[in-house]
Amino acid sequence: MSSHFADRLCEAVRTKRTPLIIGLDPVYNRLPEAIRSHRDMNDEFDAAAALDAIFDYCTQTLRIVAPLVPAVKINIAYFEKYLWEGIESYYALLSEADALGLEVIGDVKRGDIGHTAEMYAAAHLENSELSGLEDTLTPDAVTINGFAGTEGIEPFVKVADEQGKGVFVWVRASNPSASVISDFEGAGGQKFYEKLAEVVAEIANKKSRIGKSGYSNTGMIVGGTAPEITSALRKKYEKIIFLVPGYGSQGATAADCVRFCKPDGTGALISASRSIIYAYEKPHYKEQFGADWKRAIEQAVIDAKVDLATAL
Amino acid sequence: MSSHFADRLCEAVRTKRTPLIIGLDPVYNRLPEAIRSHRDMNDEFDAAAALDAIFDYCTQTLRIVAPLVPAVKINIAYFEKYLWEGIESYYALLSEADALGLEVIGDVKRGDIGHTAEMYAAAHLENSELSGLEDTLTPDAVTINGFAGTEGIEPFVKVADEQGKGVFVWVRASNPSASVISDFEGAGGQKFYEKLAEVVAEIANKKSRIGKSGYSNTGMIVGGTAPEITSALRKKYEKIIFLVPGYGSQGATAADCVRFCKPDGTGALISASRSIIYAYEKPHYKEQFGADWKRAIEQAVIDAKVDLATAL
Repeated sequence: MSSHFADRLCEAVRTKRTPLIIGLDPVYNRLPEAIRSHRDMNDEFDAAAALDAIFDYCTQTLRIVAPLVPAVKINIAYFEKYLWEGIESYYALLSEADALGLEVIGDVKRGDIGHTAEMYAAAHLENSELSGLEDTLTPDAVTINGFAGTEGIEPFVKVADEQGKGVFVWVRASNPSASVISDFEGAGGQKFYEKLAEVVAEIANKKSRIGKSGYSNTGMIVGGTAPEITSALRKKYEKIIFLVPGYGSQGATAADCVRFCKPDGTGALISASRSIIYAYEKPHYKEQFGADWKRAIEQAVIDAKVDLATAL
Repeated sequence: MSSHFADRLCEAVRTKRTPLIIGLDPVYNRLPEAIRSHRDMNDEFDAAAALDAIFDYCTQTLRIVAPLVPAVKINIAYFEKYLWEGIESYYALLSEADALGLEVIGDVKRGDIGHTAEMYAAAHLENSELSGLEDTLTPDAVTINGFAGTEGIEPFVKVADEQGKGVFVWVRASNPSASVISDFEGAGGQKFYEKLAEVVAEIANKKSRIGKSGYSNTGMIVGGTAPEITSALRKKYEKIIFLVPGYGSQGATAADCVRFCKPDGTGALISASRSIIYAYEKPHYKEQFGADWKRAIEQAVIDAKVDLATAL
């Protein structure tokens, strides 16, 4: 397997024939009845049992999606809610996903100035050999917050360089109020997210960071809801892989999202989360598959793949 | 004790007669020799033993500083490096600090869009009753990243409202490269950090969030290195408590920092970290106290208090 994150990712996108990735951000009380009830739980506040159910559900979901998509994005916040026991589950889940051959993105959005960033990079990207604590796997890539600028981003990228891993810097959010921040207009007409993209690109475009695939190990997270922004960024930053949340539940269409891809389908990861992981809640899947939540998830992934392939 | 975070904080600042707070961001290989060696450690990569030493050092340091300062700021990244075992230590340390009567700020810099922010808020601000996992104490306040805008900030403030806690939103970083981001100049001459401060103030100035002290439960983190910025923000946002990192090691002087305070010394928390917690490394304390690292820390706190009091 290639030792460059972007190359591994491109290969996986080609093999699975889709830029679709699945986001895991599981909330206990939306889990399928079968998962919630078979553990004799009294209510949703039995947190340890809820965490067990979430882990069980996630590992089963990983097995369903692994043959179909190149990568998964696991959102640590939904585990962090369960404190250190949740964090242990998060790392265990990373291992499960890795063992299934998936590229694994840790959605951690960490960010702080220099030395603190180094600590976060150690926690979320270093091999266990280095941290020395246990035989623990960290993800292939993490999402980070670039608010601290170059000095806050580089400690993560440095570890990624050393270990063949990747970093996605949050450049433009897709939620309504975030646009007040992201789209803050600068004196020269440049928007704030464009400035941030420039800062990231300066780091990402360093020659040693570009793989054989032509892509950098350092990418950008950009919401999929504004097609004209998408096209401009894709054109301007040819070496960047875009991580695109918002497909499905957040309102971005397949046509919106695939603008981040190059014609061969590489260059972007289109992340669907709630629309897939809670597919069994939707009337048309319910009608088709009844209580078989796994079939609903599988079909939702296939439908999303077709949807994106058609748009491409 | 008051159920409003800002009121408790002001009372503590008055009782301890200082706006100084101590930041704990301990790195194993800078710990005093006595702490590092008494546990038969082989090297710095014996991570479990290193974590024990860090916890031991922090609890001893808390006992030294507790009679002297109103609050401590505990940086989770330095514990997170040790994965879930580190996170367990972090929460245990919060309890130690609370038991010593300190106000406790969890320096976690979390931030994401709506629902994910709710999960982080649950992890870092909710009482254990609500999370249900264990009898675990969360901090009196947390630091957060406001990049996701109002929708990313409000989930934290909502929990703070309910539980008499506080939130500090990172508004302006003090490191050199962060200024590229923080000081990005807008079309109307407004800088990016000023925009962010506006967004935070709109949330913070809500009447129900203001305590008897006149301060909001929602504050701002602003680096202490730019005096003219400080004065302008202090004047503009009278209900805001500023959390000010950078005093001591990062180059901000006492005179720079106290500009965030009102004449009575309230309105700002001036955080010193490395200059205090590694005081025993400094030649003049070494000369005075030899291997007695605790006396060095105690004296450094007293010296910093005098330094700030003189500047006030």
